[in-house]
Amino acid sequence: MNQVKRGRAFLSTPGPTNVPDRVLNAMHRAAVDLNDPVLVDSMTASFADMKKVFQTTQSEIFIYITNGHGAWEAALANVLSAGDRILVPETGNFSGGWRDVAAAYGATIQEIPNDWRRAMDPAKVAEALAADKNHEIKAVLLVHTDTAVGITADVPAVRKAIDSVGHPALLMVDTIASLGTVDFRMDEWGVDIAVTASQKGLMMPPGLGIVAANPKAVEVHRHSTAPRRYWDWDARLQSEGYRKFCGTAPEHHMFAMREALDMIFEEGLENIFRRHQMLADAVRACVAVWAEAGALSFNAINPAERSNGVTTILTAEGIDAALLRETARDRFQTAVGGGLGKLQGKAFRIGHMGDLNEGMILGTLSAVEATMAYLGIPYQRGGVDAAIRSIAEAHRKADAVPTPMTRVA
Amino acid sequence: MNQVKRGRAFLSTPGPTNVPDRVLNAMHRAAVDLNDPVLVDSMTASFADMKKVFQTTQSEIFIYITNGHGAWEAALANVLSAGDRILVPETGNFSGGWRDVAAAYGATIQEIPNDWRRAMDPAKVAEALAADKNHEIKAVLLVHTDTAVGITADVPAVRKAIDSVGHPALLMVDTIASLGTVDFRMDEWGVDIAVTASQKGLMMPPGLGIVAANPKAVEVHRHSTAPRRYWDWDARLQSEGYRKFCGTAPEHHMFAMREALDMIFEEGLENIFRRHQMLADAVRACVAVWAEAGALSFNAINPAERSNGVTTILTAEGIDAALLRETARDRFQTAVGGGLGKLQGKAFRIGHMGDLNEGMILGTLSAVEATMAYLGIPYQRGGVDAAIRSIAEAHRKADAVPTPMTRVA
Repeated sequence: MNQVKRGRAFLSTPGPTNVPDRVLNAMHRAAVDLNDPVLVDSMTASFADMKKVFQTTQSEIFIYITNGHGAWEAALANVLSAGDRILVPETGNFSGGWRDVAAAYGATIQEIPNDWRRAMDPAKVAEALAADKNHEIKAVLLVHTDTAVGITADVPAVRKAIDSVGHPALLMVDTIASLGTVDFRMDEWGVDIAVTASQKGLMMPPGLGIVAANPKAVEVHRHSTAPRRYWDWDARLQSEGYRKFCGTAPEHHMFAMREALDMIFEEGLENIFRRHQMLADAVRACVAVWAEAGALSFNAINPAERSNGVTTILTAEGIDAALLRETARDRFQTAVGGGLGKLQGKAFRIGHMGDLNEGMILGTLSAVEATMAYLGIPYQRGGVDAAIRSIAEAHRKADAVPTPMTRVA
Repeated sequence: MNQVKRGRAFLSTPGPTNVPDRVLNAMHRAAVDLNDPVLVDSMTASFADMKKVFQTTQSEIFIYITNGHGAWEAALANVLSAGDRILVPETGNFSGGWRDVAAAYGATIQEIPNDWRRAMDPAKVAEALAADKNHEIKAVLLVHTDTAVGITADVPAVRKAIDSVGHPALLMVDTIASLGTVDFRMDEWGVDIAVTASQKGLMMPPGLGIVAANPKAVEVHRHSTAPRRYWDWDARLQSEGYRKFCGTAPEHHMFAMREALDMIFEEGLENIFRRHQMLADAVRACVAVWAEAGALSFNAINPAERSNGVTTILTAEGIDAALLRETARDRFQTAVGGGLGKLQGKAFRIGHMGDLNEGMILGTLSAVEATMAYLGIPYQRGGVDAAIRSIAEAHRKADAVPTPMTRVA
């Protein structure tokens, strides 16, 4: 069946996400002189507008040609000195990735181990910091949404934990899988450094890493001795135009960013967060039904901690999660994510972030349900039906439509 | 005049260069799963094919989401240890840029100063290395084509200079502005590390930095202690597929690279070099005529050292080179480069590399000539005429057409 592929494939991995045609079109243009006023003005506006997305007025924005891993490193290389102690609450796979960057820069790592099925308890962060009487810990690395586990951390609660013991450590937050998906208020929440990348909620192709640093972080930077050049903030702070990129600017990606930011502001951050809530609720309604057959379960035990950008689904012993993914992709043109780290082969992940609508996520859920039916994976029928009703109900609530409507009663 | 801009602008800066429509079209596609076989196969082929462009069979290829400056750093971070001595023959503006990266990593810099108007004398490299009895110098950083000065270095001669004194230093060559423009034979010339970027001879948008490292360089890497994670070769060597990028792969750029490499092999490296020779000869024929009026001159004194990718033209005192550039760009839609470093305000540069043909370069030269006529800059008339005849003559020679042809006699 389906030897010739027709139609558009569903991309439901937790990044890269779907790139809107408007963004692709914005990139589809001739290269220009790096000093061309059209490019310079567009880039200047995007630097300013990225602050709005981070919900900060006081921070500096640094845009790098890199990916999320590079953005992690850009953030650390600017504030670390060899031998600094770094506190890493384990959130899942990605706190480990960020930790490894700090370790490569000679930092002493203090990790707070945690179950991958629950968010970090902020009290443990307070406890670790309270024990650090000499303030050797220079920064707390917190992943807002760890896509491996499908859990979103409570950033304000971690900030309060830090403040509760009066510790001066920087709060550094990885918003790669959360920015433009769920609320993130850099200034109000007291985040010192935020890190993100282009290919998730920001709806661009991979290729940009973005760091926001508040005045406290910039001050720490002035005393940091880690070697760096490409990542270094100083030259970027002192430069204008393409020179803010330490070499040639990523013209095509910056035209993409301009368009993506326009789309974000046209929809509005609040509406974006509501849309992701609605789509995530639908996915969860679906998975909850599937799980009744006993072979699938949510990785995130606490419903309140489940991410609005990605749902991680554990598969029982004997179910080949990799085969499920490959079948969905190769037979039904629907790409979902696999299990990462210790969840490899034991989970799959449905991404639901970025340029996504109701039909798309229902199509993805349907294709996954068809895959399970095809493979004989035990699932409770009615998952997609539950998702459909979840979406319809959310729309009715939002529009204050009396329930039931007579026409469909 | 011309308040509405029509037609396609001429981009004749020495990078970014023109991106072929085929390459733009290759990027204009939906994002895919990072594990999608279509992407994986395309990337695998491109890693292998980049070797052909560097003319190496024995080297490892590393592709980074970054620009040329990042590629410089990627190369150095993998072979440096703090306190290493680095020899930097001054080639122009860009040897200084690469030098600064090494300095940021704690290297001791030994620079061989040089006139920006002549290529480095290889004997000076031999002399510096001969004096280094204890072999403290770990690497020689050589910029193949320094676009600020428009000069191409004689890489094999520098290799011979190193070998003549039996020095083990690595030869690291920046081919950012030369690869895919003029001949570069990594293996045959004994280059240990070559660095390039996507936006010049490779005809892609800015966004990729590429490093090739031969077995000797990989061996030096194993003993290097500079802190690094994103740039690090180890993880990239041990990984397949998207994991060769330390995080999310630059999907759209990698689809672009596939198409650009296809175009390079369709034309053939030899033909590409011949085309650049022909176009550069035309530019030089034109500039030589313009210069007869005494206000303009070639920066590169020795004709044999003039780059086939970019021509740097010095402007006499009293000529506003910045105004010339702005006028050409804003009035005649033709972007040329400005003077860099100590040539700022004293030169302009015509790029002639990448996806470029006869009509395009003649259009650029004509627009520059029109700009000079408009601004009243003293130039000798007949420059474009000389370029036209240079191109026609090159075609006749290549085709062995008897001169003169009766039809045009």
